[in-house]
Amino acid sequence: MIPTVEWRDGTVCLLDQSCLPGEVRILNCYDHHMVASAIRDLKVRGAPAIGVAAALGVALAAHTTRATSPLAFAQEMETVCAEFSSTRPTAVNLFWALDRMRRVLHTWAQASVDTLKRLLLKEALRIQEEDLAMNRAIGRHGSTVVADGHQILTHCNAGALATAGYGTALGVVRAAWEQGKRIHVFADETRPVLQGARLTAWELRQEGIPVTVITDNTAGVLMKQRRIDLCLVGADRIAANGDVANKIGTYSLAVLAKAHGVPFYVAAPSSTIDCAIASGEAIPIETRPPHEVTSLYSGTRIAPEGVEVLNLAFDVTPADYITGIITERGIFRPEQIDKVMCSAHEGEFVGRRE
Amino acid sequence: MIPTVEWRDGTVCLLDQSCLPGEVRILNCYDHHMVASAIRDLKVRGAPAIGVAAALGVALAAHTTRATSPLAFAQEMETVCAEFSSTRPTAVNLFWALDRMRRVLHTWAQASVDTLKRLLLKEALRIQEEDLAMNRAIGRHGSTVVADGHQILTHCNAGALATAGYGTALGVVRAAWEQGKRIHVFADETRPVLQGARLTAWELRQEGIPVTVITDNTAGVLMKQRRIDLCLVGADRIAANGDVANKIGTYSLAVLAKAHGVPFYVAAPSSTIDCAIASGEAIPIETRPPHEVTSLYSGTRIAPEGVEVLNLAFDVTPADYITGIITERGIFRPEQIDKVMCSAHEGEFVGRRE
Repeated sequence: MIPTVEWRDGTVCLLDQSCLPGEVRILNCYDHHMVASAIRDLKVRGAPAIGVAAALGVALAAHTTRATSPLAFAQEMETVCAEFSSTRPTAVNLFWALDRMRRVLHTWAQASVDTLKRLLLKEALRIQEEDLAMNRAIGRHGSTVVADGHQILTHCNAGALATAGYGTALGVVRAAWEQGKRIHVFADETRPVLQGARLTAWELRQEGIPVTVITDNTAGVLMKQRRIDLCLVGADRIAANGDVANKIGTYSLAVLAKAHGVPFYVAAPSSTIDCAIASGEAIPIETRPPHEVTSLYSGTRIAPEGVEVLNLAFDVTPADYITGIITERGIFRPEQIDKVMCSAHEGEFVGRRE
Repeated sequence: MIPTVEWRDGTVCLLDQSCLPGEVRILNCYDHHMVASAIRDLKVRGAPAIGVAAALGVALAAHTTRATSPLAFAQEMETVCAEFSSTRPTAVNLFWALDRMRRVLHTWAQASVDTLKRLLLKEALRIQEEDLAMNRAIGRHGSTVVADGHQILTHCNAGALATAGYGTALGVVRAAWEQGKRIHVFADETRPVLQGARLTAWELRQEGIPVTVITDNTAGVLMKQRRIDLCLVGADRIAANGDVANKIGTYSLAVLAKAHGVPFYVAAPSSTIDCAIASGEAIPIETRPPHEVTSLYSGTRIAPEGVEVLNLAFDVTPADYITGIITERGIFRPEQIDKVMCSAHEGEFVGRRE
């Protein structure tokens, strides 16, 4: 599997996901602005991958800066972090990763610029390694809810492409598949940006895991026909009460799953949990440009010129629609998240956002 | 408004809906095969419009035939009806219209070929006129459920473009608008063929009725945010028990509407009611080619080569999800359909299908 994000000798290399599945193109970022643009333009997407890319972007800025005094260096890094903070508002992993990078700067405020550069890169690479390890643990825990013969519905792409590797929701699928369970995935195409049709289908086919692409409109009737045993999705931000922000359409799926008695699981690392936010209502939801809806993915216009469009990128699924949240530390009921995940977070990420 | 289907001196003229909204192109059909292809390729679509187009297609075949003996003529018309019957399986208006055309042939079995040609054209034009009149009546009845200030969600296109004119679900919208009610329509884009983004948005903007295009994934969160007062959709076939086959995704919408306490209305003329079918389970559901999903509307490939696709064109919404069915004869609860609409149908359409 081609890595989603990689540090190679002072370059951040991103697999350009806007070109998939037609073309496997690597985007070499020589400065952090390129990384920030790639995040903004969805060339790298998926909450954990955004966090990793931003951390490596900060390390890249440290690597390329001309600042020589610790003060100038620290100020520049603050500006860089602010730039990354403004790229996308919903995925909390971005703020979490930037917070970790900032904490290095604060902890080692007396260190030399060279030392700080080294420490920032080390921290970014650690974030990346940890994410991969968390995904493998998520897969291990989550695979216990997948039985042989299960037909699994997933939405968007919560796979290796959305993370440092292996994936969250698709990490669970991968782990079940590696255990020899015969499973079949239905991938919602996930309009408007089609991450399901473009990325999830591509990723699963690379592994030989059976997958069928459906329009988002087809999920309901498949549940009615009892062809879905399990829904598995990722998350962009989880509030302390277990409410989950994820790709637009997740809420509809969760309502459908509840109406049909289909278990609905969210898979996400602890970096997705925002203990500073009490409930999903406070999660900022990104509105993206109309052209994503009116011009399809290819640029062909499919709606009348000048028509009004509402393009919400995410929605919030209340905790009571969620059977379980699969984390690297185990599977929890949404209402357990605060106790299990947030007390451990104390003194760590405090949910700072600009 | 440009007519959806029109008879002009021995030509069936269709507004090519596959070109909208980019281009207003009229497809002139000089033989009935062209009309049948246009139905198959969704150049004319929408259950009532398909019925009208097929009836005019039969009249066109009668107009252009070289048969001179009544027997040869009758046999040829049977072949023509069979060709139209095979175009699309779900919309019952097609079979209903063909049945009416066949009844002319049977009733006037002793007439001359010239008389039959005249009678077939007259019947086709009557089907067209009746459809327009039924839509206006649907609008009149349906507008009583639309209040000033209502925000209405619709799916696919059940407008003038889907009928002989005025529309079913959009006929209700039109009537409410003509009454001076300030309304706002949210149009689901309706993947895969995007009739909402392409056709509903275009049609409403022609009339100046406020419309916002959303992805199908956005409907749930809008209901959760209490931004939808009413769902209004069309139908491709209604079973005697009030179950409704309509564009894929309608069932999901109905489940969402029920979960949020949003009234869910289906608007359709009596030609959409199939009294010969007891419940929605017996309605044949068309599976369409994968390329509609994998290649978007424009031909650009958006899923990996060779990926498996399930492209169901319709789904069935059980009667208990439906608040009311708006017909030309009034608004009925689904469970009333059998008594009110099917007893009156006795001796008329018997649901014959090839």
